Amino acid sequence: MRFDDIVVKAKESKKVLSVACADDDTVIKACYDAYRENLCTPIFVGDKKKIEEIIEKNGLEEGLFEIVDEKDRAIACEKAVKLVRDEKADFLMKGFVDTSVLGKAVLNKEWGLRTGNLLSHVSLFEIDRYHKPFILTDSGFIIKPDLDMKVNIVNNAVTVMRKLGVTNPKVSILAAIEKVNPDMVETVDAQNLKKMNTEGKIKDCIVDGPLSFDVTVSKESAKHKKVESDVAGDADIMVVPDIACGNIMAKTMIYWTNCKFAGVIVGAKAPVVLISRSDNEKNKMMSIAFAASIGKF
Amino acid sequence: MRFDDIVVKAKESKKVLSVACADDDTVIKACYDAYRENLCTPIFVGDKKKIEEIIEKNGLEEGLFEIVDEKDRAIACEKAVKLVRDEKADFLMKGFVDTSVLGKAVLNKEWGLRTGNLLSHVSLFEIDRYHKPFILTDSGFIIKPDLDMKVNIVNNAVTVMRKLGVTNPKVSILAAIEKVNPDMVETVDAQNLKKMNTEGKIKDCIVDGPLSFDVTVSKESAKHKKVESDVAGDADIMVVPDIACGNIMAKTMIYWTNCKFAGVIVGAKAPVVLISRSDNEKNKMMSIAFAASIGKF
Repeated sequence: MRFDDIVVKAKESKKVLSVACADDDTVIKACYDAYRENLCTPIFVGDKKKIEEIIEKNGLEEGLFEIVDEKDRAIACEKAVKLVRDEKADFLMKGFVDTSVLGKAVLNKEWGLRTGNLLSHVSLFEIDRYHKPFILTDSGFIIKPDLDMKVNIVNNAVTVMRKLGVTNPKVSILAAIEKVNPDMVETVDAQNLKKMNTEGKIKDCIVDGPLSFDVTVSKESAKHKKVESDVAGDADIMVVPDIACGNIMAKTMIYWTNCKFAGVIVGAKAPVVLISRSDNEKNKMMSIAFAASIGKF
Repeated sequence: MRFDDIVVKAKESKKVLSVACADDDTVIKACYDAYRENLCTPIFVGDKKKIEEIIEKNGLEEGLFEIVDEKDRAIACEKAVKLVRDEKADFLMKGFVDTSVLGKAVLNKEWGLRTGNLLSHVSLFEIDRYHKPFILTDSGFIIKPDLDMKVNIVNNAVTVMRKLGVTNPKVSILAAIEKVNPDMVETVDAQNLKKMNTEGKIKDCIVDGPLSFDVTVSKESAKHKKVESDVAGDADIMVVPDIACGNIMAKTMIYWTNCKFAGVIVGAKAPVVLISRSDNEKNKMMSIAFAASIGKF
């Protein structure tokens, strides 16, 4: 499934989007765009006065969407989360609030959206030099995952891929090299993840690693390096060692290649859309469409 | 100075290249190409029989270059290094031998090429979406540098940039974010490196960090994010947290953007050319030209 198909699929069943701390120019404009494209109907939770000012300032149609007035950021997150829990909304969006504050609300034991899974960030990329969309993870939420967290990161990405129609996705655990080196923890983790996959502890996918980026995306490179791998040149999911690496790699693609891109936090009952001030309009829309098409976990 | 200028400069004073463990198809072919382009004259140190077989097999002119016969890898590295020490060669190239074995020979206390500097890898990139060539470091030699090593990595890159005619280069210490977070060691290191630069402990450059990739390469992004930095959108040198990140970022550019690329280990008296089996002909040549134009440290 390519990006255009994802947008088409997302439009099929227009969903309600609960926006936590919506008083943010970029977020409100993206929501209006998404509504106009028939992707979703937003409910804005946040400082009503500020939200209305932003709507007016940007010349957007007034009175179109429900606004839940709540100035306190933590309580606004709680109210936004409860809209999803109470099935008044289908998915969440982060507005003008720290990701950690929203994450805490999502994971609240009494009224949150816990599933027992770790929350992790998945980025979907479609790039002109690669033959299919792929997920990069985690480039936006977990700072330095240990082995257990990486198992969850893989599982979350596999679940998302399955929702996009890709069964048994190929997962590359990225590193600088293909050999295991005890001084490079990411190569040791890769070996363990591969073993867990072989032993059936990580299911519904084919895991290989450590693999370099070139082997991950190029069968030719794998042949040159004499690396035999079902994942080589055909990865659906690329797992990076940590957030610094993932973020730098993602930004390199976003700034220096022709690509489409969408980023969402998954693992809770509902996906959480994260858009950045520096994303372009197209990518903001893609993130909303991607989250809408993932649906409930 | 752009890549084409570097090649022109390298041709001005044709240098002698000492090749350690030259019995490698890719390396020998690259040396012949570089010789034909007037970049250097190689001396092959390694298994003479194998070297001659490779030359014959590839239909290359026989008897053109000096061959020093030495089957033992460590001793071949020693002999190749001594050619540079004895001023019979100007720079080194890694053939069919582990980087660590060659590194050990280069750093030998009695007959090596020590300068007191750390050895580090610098990659020079020229990419169509950025306005000038830049150095990425370290994406090929140092696995996980600590703060002291990063000081040396910055110094080595600044020295190389100065040799290319760039005085007072702008250095970005890359991370996922612009804020210092104690859970992200690269952001703490970045803050320290910036401070050392301000205090005059890292000289002849402008260091800023932590900076995200987007702020590093885009003034627009810096403006959006309200980051004030002389380095923003105009970095000459990008310092990555570790080799995994650097390698993945470098390969993303090499495989998915239009770029020219050259990689060399510096810090010893003479630069060491490293080419990879998967580099294309152009990039192999660029690495030799880049090393030739750096000259002695």
